[in-house]
Amino acid sequence: MRILVINPNTTVSMTKKIGEASENAASAGTTIVAVNPNKGPASIEGYFDEALSLTGLIEVVREREDYDAIILACFDDTGLDAVRCMTDAPVLGIGEAAFHMASMLSNKFSVVTTLSRSVSAIEHNLVRYGLATRCAKVRASEVAVLDLESGNGNARAKISAEITSAIENDNAEAIVLGCAGMTDLAATLSLQHGLPVLDGVACAINLAESLVRLGHKTSKLGGYAPAVYDK
Amino acid sequence: MRILVINPNTTVSMTKKIGEASENAASAGTTIVAVNPNKGPASIEGYFDEALSLTGLIEVVREREDYDAIILACFDDTGLDAVRCMTDAPVLGIGEAAFHMASMLSNKFSVVTTLSRSVSAIEHNLVRYGLATRCAKVRASEVAVLDLESGNGNARAKISAEITSAIENDNAEAIVLGCAGMTDLAATLSLQHGLPVLDGVACAINLAESLVRLGHKTSKLGGYAPAVYDK
Amino acid sequence: MRILVINPNTTVSMTKKIGEASENAASAGTTIVAVNPNKGPASIEGYFDEALSLTGLIEVVREREDYDAIILACFDDTGLDAVRCMTDAPVLGIGEAAFHMASMLSNKFSVVTTLSRSVSAIEHNLVRYGLATRCAKVRASEVAVLDLESGNGNARAKISAEITSAIENDNAEAIVLGCAGMTDLAATLSLQHGLPVLDGVACAINLAESLVRLGHKTSKLGGYAPAVYDK
Amino acid sequence: MRILVINPNTTVSMTKKIGEASENAASAGTTIVAVNPNKGPASIEGYFDEALSLTGLIEVVREREDYDAIILACFDDTGLDAVRCMTDAPVLGIGEAAFHMASMLSNKFSVVTTLSRSVSAIEHNLVRYGLATRCAKVRASEVAVLDLESGNGNARAKISAEITSAIENDNAEAIVLGCAGMTDLAATLSLQHGLPVLDGVACAINLAESLVRLGHKTSKLGGYAPAVYDK
Amino acid sequence: MRILVINPNTTVSMTKKIGEASENAASAGTTIVAVNPNKGPASIEGYFDEALSLTGLIEVVREREDYDAIILACFDDTGLDAVRCMTDAPVLGIGEAAFHMASMLSNKFSVVTTLSRSVSAIEHNLVRYGLATRCAKVRASEVAVLDLESGNGNARAKISAEITSAIENDNAEAIVLGCAGMTDLAATLSLQHGLPVLDGVACAINLAESLVRLGHKTSKLGGYAPAVYDK
Amino acid sequence: MRILVINPNTTVSMTKKIGEASENAASAGTTIVAVNPNKGPASIEGYFDEALSLTGLIEVVREREDYDAIILACFDDTGLDAVRCMTDAPVLGIGEAAFHMASMLSNKFSVVTTLSRSVSAIEHNLVRYGLATRCAKVRASEVAVLDLESGNGNARAKISAEITSAIENDNAEAIVLGCAGMTDLAATLSLQHGLPVLDGVACAINLAESLVRLGHKTSKLGGYAPAVYDK
Repeated sequence: MRILVINPNTTVSMTKKIGEASENAASAGTTIVAVNPNKGPASIEGYFDEALSLTGLIEVVREREDYDAIILACFDDTGLDAVRCMTDAPVLGIGEAAFHMASMLSNKFSVVTTLSRSVSAIEHNLVRYGLATRCAKVRASEVAVLDLESGNGNARAKISAEITSAIENDNAEAIVLGCAGMTDLAATLSLQHGLPVLDGVACAINLAESLVRLGHKTSKLGGYAPAVYDK
Repeated sequence: MRILVINPNTTVSMTKKIGEASENAASAGTTIVAVNPNKGPASIEGYFDEALSLTGLIEVVREREDYDAIILACFDDTGLDAVRCMTDAPVLGIGEAAFHMASMLSNKFSVVTTLSRSVSAIEHNLVRYGLATRCAKVRASEVAVLDLESGNGNARAKISAEITSAIENDNAEAIVLGCAGMTDLAATLSLQHGLPVLDGVACAINLAESLVRLGHKTSKLGGYAPAVYDK
Repeated sequence: MRILVINPNTTVSMTKKIGEASENAASAGTTIVAVNPNKGPASIEGYFDEALSLTGLIEVVREREDYDAIILACFDDTGLDAVRCMTDAPVLGIGEAAFHMASMLSNKFSVVTTLSRSVSAIEHNLVRYGLATRCAKVRASEVAVLDLESGNGNARAKISAEITSAIENDNAEAIVLGCAGMTDLAATLSLQHGLPVLDGVACAINLAESLVRLGHKTSKLGGYAPAVYDK
Repeated sequence: MRILVINPNTTVSMTKKIGEASENAASAGTTIVAVNPNKGPASIEGYFDEALSLTGLIEVVREREDYDAIILACFDDTGLDAVRCMTDAPVLGIGEAAFHMASMLSNKFSVVTTLSRSVSAIEHNLVRYGLATRCAKVRASEVAVLDLESGNGNARAKISAEITSAIENDNAEAIVLGCAGMTDLAATLSLQHGLPVLDGVACAINLAESLVRLGHKTSKLGGYAPAVYDK
Repeated sequence: MRILVINPNTTVSMTKKIGEASENAASAGTTIVAVNPNKGPASIEGYFDEALSLTGLIEVVREREDYDAIILACFDDTGLDAVRCMTDAPVLGIGEAAFHMASMLSNKFSVVTTLSRSVSAIEHNLVRYGLATRCAKVRASEVAVLDLESGNGNARAKISAEITSAIENDNAEAIVLGCAGMTDLAATLSLQHGLPVLDGVACAINLAESLVRLGHKTSKLGGYAPAVYDK
Repeated sequence: MRILVINPNTTVSMTKKIGEASENAASAGTTIVAVNPNKGPASIEGYFDEALSLTGLIEVVREREDYDAIILACFDDTGLDAVRCMTDAPVLGIGEAAFHMASMLSNKFSVVTTLSRSVSAIEHNLVRYGLATRCAKVRASEVAVLDLESGNGNARAKISAEITSAIENDNAEAIVLGCAGMTDLAATLSLQHGLPVLDGVACAINLAESLVRLGHKTSKLGGYAPAVYDK
């Protein structure tokens, strides 16, 4: 099967990291096609960046037909509903995927994301999915998305500190890492802290493979009825 | 004061109707500037159209500085969070405005909107605003947005039928009309059915004027922190 | 238009302050009639005081016919439902008004009110309005209502301290001042802390004017059906 | 022990019926003192009547010291919070009592009350108590409170029809009768329909006896801190 | 009347303590039959122990016919739904009983239970009953169930510390003790801290007596339809 | 990898059907071990049966060590929390799995299960998982579990009728089949009705494979801390 993994921002090094994480997570026989739009914001931190990325995101989807599933690799699940109207293939956001999986491994989880300004959008999504009751707290590590790329700012230590606090103060039983750029940190942090630490990219790849194997499609009744193009 | 009223779709006749409704609702001394993007979908019915309209919408806002408030005149409140990051002027969606006002006139209200495929997005917004508990039901009249423009399909009768059903079956005490294109129907339907029927355009204009007079600004802490351009 | 602004307690200096705040907030052409009942509690701090004030409050409304809207100027929104049954003019509570307006300027707000014993009633109202999900926390400054009048107890400093804590600990993006007696502090506190600080009196005046201009009435279907007098 | 049972309306025949129902429900050794205020509405149907009854209700409580618990015998739980500030004895509303008890006998219950205009207040209370999730539906039989007294209007048949509908359509597993005046109908309706039918008067008497035997008091911390009189 | 009080664990000294607490709480004329299963876990701390205890619990119920009500004396309300299918007599869990009663004495309560691992199950029950909105926090004192029996670990001091913290930090107006083994501590802690401290055993006995006196039965419609044996 | 699929009832033909469905759903390289307890109820319809099955279920798990994941193949997710305490391998219920997957394919889904008496337990689980807001309605087809095995009662037609009603009346965009015994009907019903119809057995197998590939474990912090045996 082929999975189209879209990084909605235009930072090629992130697309590369996401692509590698996707391939590591995928089964043999699954081809990962990791892409980003040509134009748009270099990072997505909050509502404005999300909105600005959508045209490029939609174009990426329109250009392609040969995929069995689509992953939106921004933790805000940017464009999730719009893209679901464009196909009946399964479409998953990495935030969504991580939330659902964390809910199967724990009673309660906390999220550790990048900047404070990103917290709201994540909280909105949790409410929408119904999983706000499963999330104790959405925490900001104050590490910018591009600092995850550049290595500035001691990203891992800051994220780790938030995890420690989540275990002590939130009674979190699992942690969801709240940014595609944190994908390579999950395993180490899990070992270090002794609880499940979930990376949305890997979760989404596996969930997408599952849905494809099951032959399940995005419903075309109601909210995800097929998009009408060129209105 | 000057209020920028943005019709996120590109149908000029709707922008004109919205502009007129805005001017009727505005106080003396308020200048209404009604615009639509140059490019984008001709109507917004559901998630995909919303997403496609955002780039044009954002451009409209970027081009202008001279406004005291912004109204997003699509009942889905398209782009609300993104635009709030672009200014500290008050920004209101017409759906949001109508929901809040209906909550001050009744214990429960129902919404009558256009197509079934639009219901989901409205329900999501109600949950986000906290007002889902005030809304008995979101009903689809199955009148397409552009049929409101063209007069096809007996729009008013279908909407009226849904209102009758809402009073009988939902115990609705007020009705919110779920499309900017229904703006001219509110008064007649209210008289006909004997309960408040709210048009989001008029509600939003008045709410925006209120916020400006109060000197209140969109908060720049947290989720609506200023957008970073040209990332 | 004429707006009847009722201070449900009998402290004339508060009525005067509320009246001035109302006039400052009102548009030219709006006449403010600020009144309080003849008998009843001198301040409203909690459920008992609310209940005791209602007979006088209802009398004030019964005596008058010449108003286009009514404001209940106690942050508990004392008598809101009862008065809505007495008229089809719009009726707003200042707590209600502030909560709705704060919801249009921020993702989350906190409330700073007077005594601990007043917190419960405010929390109940937030739940009723659906806006509990928009409120991070209701905080008590432990400043008594009448100390706001007398200047005892360093009211402003205590309220300011709670605002600082709300920004740090609640992630509040806006503040709602939880007492009619705080009406004169809003602007200074907003400047000092750099986020919207809302006064319910001013919010309510403007919202009432909006509803009257829109020609909207309190619904007479269901819970606010007309009161039957002299049962 | 002595239980003060207050009928907040002034209809003496209802006070008498409530008193008899209370005595039937009480244990040997419990004295029931059933009273109503001297002045106030003859029946309570909705928010306005509730508000108007409070001064008389409060006076009834102030005049008496010799009680171990207080029951407010109006299904709207009129004055519940205010009276709890006036004593540390247990205070129960008959609606509240019936909702809690129904929750111990079934997964879901429906309420059958008098007029449509009373539904809202009951729904508000259910939300406040947390028990809205346990209630499938609040139904209006359209029987006026005083028709229960006079025998007009075939009260029992109408209430019975609503119960039938609740079982079929709401999946209700128990019924709560939503008016003190229905107190004498519970046993017959239960037999007739084969499910628990709860009368709030009897529930409240027994709950009050339980709380007194347990030595439990209304908390004086927070919202029910002692009333300050003669402010 | 006869009340069957089942301690779902096999620790005879706890059954004895529960039996004594039950007798102290019961009215004259009520016979308490306190039993525990022959086999099963010695203490119930969390989900696994709950599940393991059910077969023995069910056997205890099957063996007996002569009871008017059943109390499940484990704070997790172990087996509540299953046992309700086995009889139409009222069946109450001690957690359930305490939550309902605390809700009649306060706006908000906190729970102080034994180990962290027990918190989740209690939180699940609160959500199920609808009373999660009435509970500020479920706290773990880290006192093991059997340490309550043996006197190890300074149980009372640890529980008391949690109560102090609940009053300060949770704004709790009442406390529910979260283990049958804490039954003898309630009165002293209430005196010490000056707020209602509820013991589920005593609450449940009284609630059960009330339901029996009222002649109310567990509904046999829907979820508690009679169990089919020997499938 | 090896997946232990437990049918909590003792009907061997159902275990066989579940085993076949599991094998069909599994990837090459996954070994399915489908088992049922030796003793216990022949079918699980409601709370009592669930409880009675737990000892046998727990024994099945205790006897085995060689598994990478466990599936509980009863739509009530019988024993889910208890079994999660017995291992750190992923443990999934088929109801849980289907709910999560349906949430990734639609805005809203309805459940079609067997008997009315089973609806409550499913509703409770939906609330616990946070997914009640994603489920429009839980419907009973009134087909008994063992009639699915025997072919009595025209199972498929009744289930199909409920699906039609769900699409028309609930606005369901997807259907979850609410019994392990319906596993073989999903594909045909999906084709027939034109929307996703999910079978929990297949969903759970794939989700379990995903979790194992990801190396994720059930958290041992908090509610799922390791069971203490032989207490």
